[in-house]
This record gives sequence, structure tokens and C-alpha cells, in this order.
Amino acid sequence: MKEMLVQLGKRAKDAEAALRTISTDKKNQVLAAVADHLVKNSEALLKANEEDVKNGKANHMPEGLVDRLLLTRERIEGMADGLRQLVDLEDPVGEVTGMKKRPNGLLIGQKRVPLGVIGIIYEARPNVTADAFGLCFKTGNVVILKGGSDAIHSNQAIVACIRETLKEQGITEDAIQLIEDTSRETAGEFMKMNEYVDVLIPRGGKGLIRAVVNQSTIPVIETGTGNCHIYVDETADPEMAADIIMNAKTQRVGVCNACESLLVHDSMKEVLLPVLAERLREKHVEMRADQEALSLMPGAVPADEEDWGTEYLDYILSIKIVYSVEEAIAHINRYNTGHSEAIITNNYMHAQKFLDEVDAAAVYVNASTRFTDGCEFGYGAEIGISTQKLHARGPMGLLALTTTKYIIYGNGQIRP
Amino acid sequence: MKEMLVQLGKRAKDAEAALRTISTDKKNQVLAAVADHLVKNSEALLKANEEDVKNGKANHMPEGLVDRLLLTRERIEGMADGLRQLVDLEDPVGEVTGMKKRPNGLLIGQKRVPLGVIGIIYEARPNVTADAFGLCFKTGNVVILKGGSDAIHSNQAIVACIRETLKEQGITEDAIQLIEDTSRETAGEFMKMNEYVDVLIPRGGKGLIRAVVNQSTIPVIETGTGNCHIYVDETADPEMAADIIMNAKTQRVGVCNACESLLVHDSMKEVLLPVLAERLREKHVEMRADQEALSLMPGAVPADEEDWGTEYLDYILSIKIVYSVEEAIAHINRYNTGHSEAIITNNYMHAQKFLDEVDAAAVYVNASTRFTDGCEFGYGAEIGISTQKLHARGPMGLLALTTTKYIIYGNGQIRP
Repeated sequence: MKEMLVQLGKRAKDAEAALRTISTDKKNQVLAAVADHLVKNSEALLKANEEDVKNGKANHMPEGLVDRLLLTRERIEGMADGLRQLVDLEDPVGEVTGMKKRPNGLLIGQKRVPLGVIGIIYEARPNVTADAFGLCFKTGNVVILKGGSDAIHSNQAIVACIRETLKEQGITEDAIQLIEDTSRETAGEFMKMNEYVDVLIPRGGKGLIRAVVNQSTIPVIETGTGNCHIYVDETADPEMAADIIMNAKTQRVGVCNACESLLVHDSMKEVLLPVLAERLREKHVEMRADQEALSLMPGAVPADEEDWGTEYLDYILSIKIVYSVEEAIAHINRYNTGHSEAIITNNYMHAQKFLDEVDAAAVYVNASTRFTDGCEFGYGAEIGISTQKLHARGPMGLLALTTTKYIIYGNGQIRP
Repeated sequence: MKEMLVQLGKRAKDAEAALRTISTDKKNQVLAAVADHLVKNSEALLKANEEDVKNGKANHMPEGLVDRLLLTRERIEGMADGLRQLVDLEDPVGEVTGMKKRPNGLLIGQKRVPLGVIGIIYEARPNVTADAFGLCFKTGNVVILKGGSDAIHSNQAIVACIRETLKEQGITEDAIQLIEDTSRETAGEFMKMNEYVDVLIPRGGKGLIRAVVNQSTIPVIETGTGNCHIYVDETADPEMAADIIMNAKTQRVGVCNACESLLVHDSMKEVLLPVLAERLREKHVEMRADQEALSLMPGAVPADEEDWGTEYLDYILSIKIVYSVEEAIAHINRYNTGHSEAIITNNYMHAQKFLDEVDAAAVYVNASTRFTDGCEFGYGAEIGISTQKLHARGPMGLLALTTTKYIIYGNGQIRP
């Protein structure tokens, strides 16, 4: 391994020990100070960002990505506000749960503790830099950041600003470190630093996440893609169904909890689809329908097999007719990505069956899939939405950045 | 990927859906029936095992491994008893926790569900075959087993017996599948079956676990090695200290929660070490001591740097003198494997500091490290002891084989 990474790992381990004993009050004080410092340093951050944006444009970066890369005074205020909001959230670290006395007198409980050192691998979004630091620091974790090369100047400026504040506050600056070498080779080595890094969280598109899952030997928390379905059951209220579908499809299209595919019970197709088609057309949503739905949806084009498994992240919706709740569940479990799934129904048994049998992080009855979100679920902040089953599933708040350890109080017990 | 593995994965996915709806009563009935069937089929199991043992001896398998491979009538009874004990344990699946009403009226809770498909990779220990099946089945999980080639006949016989019982009970036989091709190549491909397998659990020695962690793209639950320490603080009761050390070192030496290294505060060395040395010599424990401890422990040999990081799993103990609780904690956090660590003390502040700052799955005050065990912690059964921080840490009972999903009851909510 590169000596640079070893040194960085060692510094992270030292910082981990230092953060283990820091109080919630102090953590909050530091978060507020970092927020102020970022705003005060706006000029320097904007200047560094300007260079990244200039390079991005010169390299023909697509407009959408340039927009994600761009910092403005308003966006810097937004980053600072994000940090300030963390101050008000409850610190999960230190809570002891399930303390029980065993027959031999041992008192055994589980104490919530930081994960340790968290690696974040992300693309050219400078806001993630401050955001990830805030979430990790609030939970007592050290963070090592590996951002995209296109945002390197912005990231350097933000990290420098955070480290200055840490120093002023008497906290080890190594609570945050940035890997400045953005080469693919270094990223590959970073993903194998099991000795120094407890968990890796990739934040970005499908390709980035897949690459991290495939290459990393460090445990990964996969935040993911969402091929989300809405199933309209025979007893659904058609108006409620149409409102929820429109919301889940069009309220924001580029997000993982948007609806990508619609399943409609055969008995509902005539009352729902023509009306829905009109509303979708108004919003310029392309409809890709199976044979049975096609004739009821003027303007729709035929769907093919590939559509069922596609997360469009766009103004496109696939539509399929099914003949039972069982068929809907089987289709969803075959094609979904384990994110968010909804049934619209007024049938009690079908609602319970759908909740029981659909395999996803969030399963809804009579509501929009768009609610799968840390803030909507009441967590205040979120590091991502886990679509894997280990450790955390669904929106991950501060709790997902912690683990537990057993603490045991004895008075001389030995094992017989 | 090999067509055989794809077929096996697809069958597992089908079985996963079937197990999702099975009641606890039915699961218990099946476990009891499998236990009975194994005992009734002892003759066939012993015959298959005989072939493995014969081959093992012909291949010069070390005696200890032959013993682990060997089945006897008594050991088959033991396997059956293990399954029967699972019947009495509470089924964690189905519990809904934290159900809360959000301001918009959505009712959001977390329901405990099976992980799905669990892969177990293990060595030549046929008892793991029945054991892993029982734990996975009780929690509604499908299991795919990849055992060592040395136990293939035994494993085939046990799995055949379990599948027969499943069929008789009207449950899909694919709730358990054995990969009969024990080649390294197939194992490597199995570890990349992310589409079909939700989690891999390696059970075996350090080498096996390391290989799985390094090769797998599927999330792994690492069960692990234990370089466990006992630190004797200045205010320790020397008799209690010696009793706990003797227990943790010699009650059973080949296990991960045995003590491997002793740290003694300088002020305690003269009262503790000569007496302890005598007791250790009686039990034929080799003592590897640092310079300061050496002269106080007749029969000890000098320790070198490598000793501090070694899990002996043998009648060997390393001994080091330290000058403060801080030094003890720093040494432990540098050399331990995150398993079990103990302080012997009568100082309140030191006890709390040790519990707070030592980074391990289980941290003890005044008790033997040997208690880190699913049964001792009150879980009734255990699939292993996790030394990683994600998902589960410490002894893993049935709960560790489950995950949660959010279930959300709405009445037409859309996101504003």
C-alpha cells in the first residue's frame, strides 16, 4: 500500500481514540463553529470552486453535473445550515440498552459507540464534503473523504476550512482527512485498508456504488438505486391512486424514491388508465405500456422486457396489467431493487399480504413512495438510503453511523 | 458464472419467498421433525462419515481435525438436541418496533424480517451443517452451504436427511442446499453471487475468514479471532485477578474468548506475578514475559514484539508490565482483534474509563473473558461471535440473522 495511505490511516486511528471521549456539548460547539467558519470563508471557497467549474466546462462536463459541482453563497449557507441542524439532533452515542443481570450475577448491557473510521467515496458534489463530515463528527466518527477529481479544489478548500476550525477548537484536525490523490489506483488501495477503516459508504450513481461493492474488502454500506413500483389493487380508490402515482412519478424525477413502474389490477384498468394517461401526458411523461394497457392509454408506446427492470430517473413510466395481488408481489420481488414499493387498496387482507411479502426497505399502503427519506421519517438528517439488508435498511440517520459494544460488570465471575 | 450456481441461486430465491410466510409453529414443528429424523438415520450418517474419516486419515489429516470431522451416535444426538433447543427460543421475525405517527398522518414502523438467503462457508465440521440450517430456518432464512471437501459425504448425508424431512413436512426442500462441488473455483464464484445471496458467514479459522473477506462481493459477517487481554490494575484484588486469569487462560485454550495476553500494573507485579507463575506452571502454561516481568516469574521466557499480536490458542500467555490504565488501553487498542477485553480493578474511574475507551465487542470489569458466548449472554444459540462493527457485534444469536423493513400505513398521503 502507498505510504501516504498508511500514514493517513494511522492518523485516522489516533484521531478515533481522541474522538471516543469527546462530549456531545463539545461536538455541538464544534459543528456550530465549522458552520460559521464556512460562511465566513465563502470568498475562498467560491474561488476554489470557480477553478473546478472552469476545468469542468473545459472538459465538456454535462450541464447537470456542472450544476451539482457549482457553489454559490446560497449553497454555502445551505451547507452551514445542514451542520447547524445537526446540533439539535439527539446524539445516539453513549446510550446503554438491554442491561440485564445474568444468573451468575454478571450485569450485561449494550452501549452505543461510534463505528470508528468511516470512508466516504463520492463524486463531484462539494456539498457532500461538509455534510459527511457533520454526520460522522456528530456520531464521534473519524471521516476519510475520497471525492471526485473534478471537485478537488472545492474539497480542499472546504476541508482546510473545517480543519482550521477543529484546530481552533482544540480537536484533532485528523477527525477529517481528504485523499488528495484522486487517481483510480489510490481509490482501489483505499478500498482495501481494512486495518484502518471500519466501513465504506459510497455516495453517487449506480456505477460508483457497483465499483465500490466489487472492489472493497472493507464492509460497505450500499446506498442505492430505486426501481420503485406502485400496485393499484382491485379495491383502490381510483382518484387516490392517480394522485399518488402522479406524485411519486413527477414530484421529482431524478431521485431514487420516485416511481418507475406501475402495476394495475385488470379490474381497475378501464376506470384508471385513460384518466391517468391524460394527467401523465400533461406532465410530459412517456408511457411504456404492456399489450393490455396500451389501448387504454392514448400516446403510450409498447414496453419491452427491459423496461420492467429499469430505473429511468426521468419522465418515463412503465405500465403493466396484473390479475392478482400475488402476481403483483411476484413481479415486484423479481424486478425491484429493494427500495420503496406501494400498494393502493382498500382490501385489508391484500394490504397486510403486500406489507408481509414484498421484499424492500420501505413498503407502503396508500401513500407515495416519495416519503422514503430521512427527514420525512423523522431522522432529521440522512447519510443515504440503504438498499442492502445488513446493518441498516432504508433511510440511514445518525444511528446507522454507530455500533454497539457489550459492557459487562462483574465481581470476580469465572466460567465453570 | 457456472450454470449450476445460477440454478441453485434461483431455487434459493424461490424458497426465500415461500419461507417468508411460514408460521413460527410450523417452523418449530419442522425443527423437531428434523431432529428426530437425524437420530433415526444415524446409521446412514455414520456410514457416510466413516468414508470421510477414512479418506482424511489416508490424506494424513491432523488428529485434531479428524476428531472434529468424526461423527458418533452421541454427537448426532447432540446435533439433534441443538435443533430441539431452537424450538424453545423466541422467534424474532414479525415483531414491529418504533411505530410512530408522523405529522402528515403516516404511521411508520420497523418490522423484523429474515435476511433472505444466507451462505455459510465452513471447514470439515459436519455439526455445522445441521446447526447452521437450524439457526437459519428458525429465522425464516434459506441457507446455502459450502462445506469443506473433507466432509462432503457426511454433509451430503445430513443435508439429504434434512431435505427429506422438509418434503414430508410440506416445506420446500430448497430451504437448504449444499454446494457439492467443493473446488476453490466454485467457492470463488459463489462469493460473488450478490444477485442471489444476501449475506455470507464464514465459520472456521483465520485463513478461511480472511479469504472470504478478501474475495467476497456479498456482504460478509466476519466471525473472528480473539487476541484477548486481561489488565490487572493497581487496586485489583490479587486473588480475584489470579483466579480470573487462570480461568480465562486455561479453562479451555483453543477458543476465541480465551485470554492470550496479560497486562499488569507495575505496582501489582510483585504481589501477583510470583504466585501466578506457580499456578500457570502447574497447568503447563508457557509464560512469555517482558523484561520487567521476567525476573518475577520463574520459568518464563522473554517475549518479543510478535507475541503482543499473537492469538496462541494454546497453553501460552504473554505478560507485560504497564504504568497506567491509559498505557494498558493504548496497548490493547493497538494489538487486540476487537473481541473480549477485561480489567481487574477496584477503582471506579478506571473501570469506567476502560469500558469507555477499549475498542472491542465485549469489555469486562472483574470477570473472565470466557463469558463472551451466545449461551452465556442469554441468547440460547449462536451462529458465531462477530468482531466487526457492522450489523452485529459480539455473540450473534437469532436476531443477527434478521433485518428490518419499514412498513408504512397511509390514507392517500402525497409529498408536498
